[in-house]
Amino acid sequence: MKKNVLIIGAGGVARVVAHKCAQHNDILGDIAIASRNVAKCEQILASVKQKNSLKVPGKLSAFTLDALDVEATKALIRETDSQIVINVGSAFINMSVLSACIDTGAAYLDTAIHEEPDKICETPPWYNNYEWKRRELCKEKGVTAILGVGFDPGVVNAYAALAASEYFDSIDSIDILDVNAGSHGRYFATNFDPEINFREFTGQVWSWQSGQWTSNKMFEIKRTDDLPVVGEQTTYMTGHDEVHSLSQNLNVPNVRFWMGFGEHYINVFTVLNNLGLLSEQPVKTAEGQEVVPLKVVKAVLPDPSSLAPGYAGKTCIGDVVKGKKDSKDKEVFIYNVADHKDAYNEVGSQGISYTAGVPPVAAALLIARGDWDVGSMVNVEQLPPQPFLGLLNEMGLPSRIRDEQGDRPLVF
Amino acid sequence: MKKNVLIIGAGGVARVVAHKCAQHNDILGDIAIASRNVAKCEQILASVKQKNSLKVPGKLSAFTLDALDVEATKALIRETDSQIVINVGSAFINMSVLSACIDTGAAYLDTAIHEEPDKICETPPWYNNYEWKRRELCKEKGVTAILGVGFDPGVVNAYAALAASEYFDSIDSIDILDVNAGSHGRYFATNFDPEINFREFTGQVWSWQSGQWTSNKMFEIKRTDDLPVVGEQTTYMTGHDEVHSLSQNLNVPNVRFWMGFGEHYINVFTVLNNLGLLSEQPVKTAEGQEVVPLKVVKAVLPDPSSLAPGYAGKTCIGDVVKGKKDSKDKEVFIYNVADHKDAYNEVGSQGISYTAGVPPVAAALLIARGDWDVGSMVNVEQLPPQPFLGLLNEMGLPSRIRDEQGDRPLVF
Repeated sequence: MKKNVLIIGAGGVARVVAHKCAQHNDILGDIAIASRNVAKCEQILASVKQKNSLKVPGKLSAFTLDALDVEATKALIRETDSQIVINVGSAFINMSVLSACIDTGAAYLDTAIHEEPDKICETPPWYNNYEWKRRELCKEKGVTAILGVGFDPGVVNAYAALAASEYFDSIDSIDILDVNAGSHGRYFATNFDPEINFREFTGQVWSWQSGQWTSNKMFEIKRTDDLPVVGEQTTYMTGHDEVHSLSQNLNVPNVRFWMGFGEHYINVFTVLNNLGLLSEQPVKTAEGQEVVPLKVVKAVLPDPSSLAPGYAGKTCIGDVVKGKKDSKDKEVFIYNVADHKDAYNEVGSQGISYTAGVPPVAAALLIARGDWDVGSMVNVEQLPPQPFLGLLNEMGLPSRIRDEQGDRPLVF
Repeated sequence: MKKNVLIIGAGGVARVVAHKCAQHNDILGDIAIASRNVAKCEQILASVKQKNSLKVPGKLSAFTLDALDVEATKALIRETDSQIVINVGSAFINMSVLSACIDTGAAYLDTAIHEEPDKICETPPWYNNYEWKRRELCKEKGVTAILGVGFDPGVVNAYAALAASEYFDSIDSIDILDVNAGSHGRYFATNFDPEINFREFTGQVWSWQSGQWTSNKMFEIKRTDDLPVVGEQTTYMTGHDEVHSLSQNLNVPNVRFWMGFGEHYINVFTVLNNLGLLSEQPVKTAEGQEVVPLKVVKAVLPDPSSLAPGYAGKTCIGDVVKGKKDSKDKEVFIYNVADHKDAYNEVGSQGISYTAGVPPVAAALLIARGDWDVGSMVNVEQLPPQPFLGLLNEMGLPSRIRDEQGDRPLVF
């Protein structure tokens, strides 16, 4: 039984993780939270206390950490006696935090793929470029590393695994739809770190089609679906982490990711992108200062966590899966609908952060209990989905299914 | 008879100034050009030689200069024995260059009002905040300083003075229209320094109406006119230098400035402005770097002088003047139409730079000849307009008038 959790990061998702760990600290033990900015960690712990999120009396502590520093991260894992590390910091720190976990034997969890600051949209499958290079080492050392265990990637990978094991004999296509039908009331904002958010859209859009990698441009291909609760929604084919593992781990010829955007978002994005303001490559001002434009855009945009109090509406994220069952065509939509206000009332974050932050805590509980403590590096679709989705049903992210028999809760 | 010209600045306007000075070097004498970037000065001189712009054999020289350094500027004025300084550098250097001229006795010419980097849209009239504080000193020392002698401000001020002296008994309104109906073929670009260009639009729009200062927002008020050559055009009330002198120097209750913008320009501007990316105030990135967003926008936009080769179409800039003549209502439109390609073929700059760069050379010729060597600080409307507009008719910027008698060239 593993216990004591170190959370790395102090944004909106980290806040959700901290609250949810606290709600299950009878199993998870001590909770430590660390980031470059310790004041943000302390604010999160204050919120945990203020909302009485701790299930049983327990230890909460905040630390300053540069998570690119492997030795410092190892020292903190040891100092806090953490056997589980939930990395919800910047996507740039995955590999250093993973190294620290491998060296200390702590279980590693993250919610987004590793990125290098000066590169976007590298050769697919992306996991091959960084994380999967450590697969052998994790296996050799018996270290549990669960990659991409947020909502998407994460829960949507479990939906895919569930579809494959329970609903289909063969799957032709998995289309993951991510729609935020909520509104933050600002002129423009991103729902998580703008730097990471925009990097998803400025390069090529990789999808897995007819069993091979296909490249498109952002906003080149769209679809419209009539979705539960949020109604008719237009989504655009987008590059996303889960396409890069599902395509390799499941025998499915078509895996695509679709994200919903309004016209205003697309207009602002298009202006910024066409001007070169979303570039991760530095430019030089007339005065000779070297600046990465994307970092300046991030600096002028609202802090995503500041959006939470005014956020209204719902998200709908799920998998449209098509294939054959008993030689007949079959289609299912497995999904979750989350409410921004409910999330804010419970943990002080908006719905996007909530959907990303609850799943890694469910995964941590499964590691603590032993169900998912596999002693190797895996993506979520390689693990049994039922205990994970069952826990999420109880933790605030209930799953539903819509198929030829109608729309109903998924019960485990 | 004053002679030898020092040009400060090395952008698109400076290129026009250099070519036009060369075309009149029999009167203007030696031509020196100085900027922070001497390579840009040398490129301009190479262009002057390549196009055989020198009227008579003469001296051309390039210098490195930080024009914020008054002593260095004085030393260069003395070293080059310049009696006329044409300042077409950044709007931030006006006061230091003016100081150097006052100390050395050289005549001073500029084409835009002084600005401080961290301030926009100060209290009107803007000239009161900087330049006009030196009026007494110029008079005392007998130094000629002609402020704002580009096209707008500059030629449009002369049009206003001409209307007042020749066409009207009393004037009710002067509406200056500035339309660029040309196209550079890029996604987005500004026609001169983006930093200065955007600063015109991010603050309040000051206009002089019913004899008092009136404040509006950018793009709040528009008009549509059927203009010569360029046809029907929508322009927006915009803050601009000449409103701040014409309102004080002419007894006219309404002075307004209107600039033409296409919907695409307005969309890009609105996105950047709403996001805070046009701010002249520094922001701090997540990494702690202090950056002025506007300087980053400038860094990613095309260099305005790079637009010249592909620029096509025409500009139309002029004054709609309404008032009374012989107790009857009268309206005139005094204007110039310039062609981007013609400008490029002649001097290697586009039409916007051409209209801004030719007038200060005409003014320099008038100072050299003595007509405008007034030994004090003036705005263009305080000088006799006829010799200036007469020279411009010959120098590539012919004026026309449209009134109840039709549309015809203005001849002097």
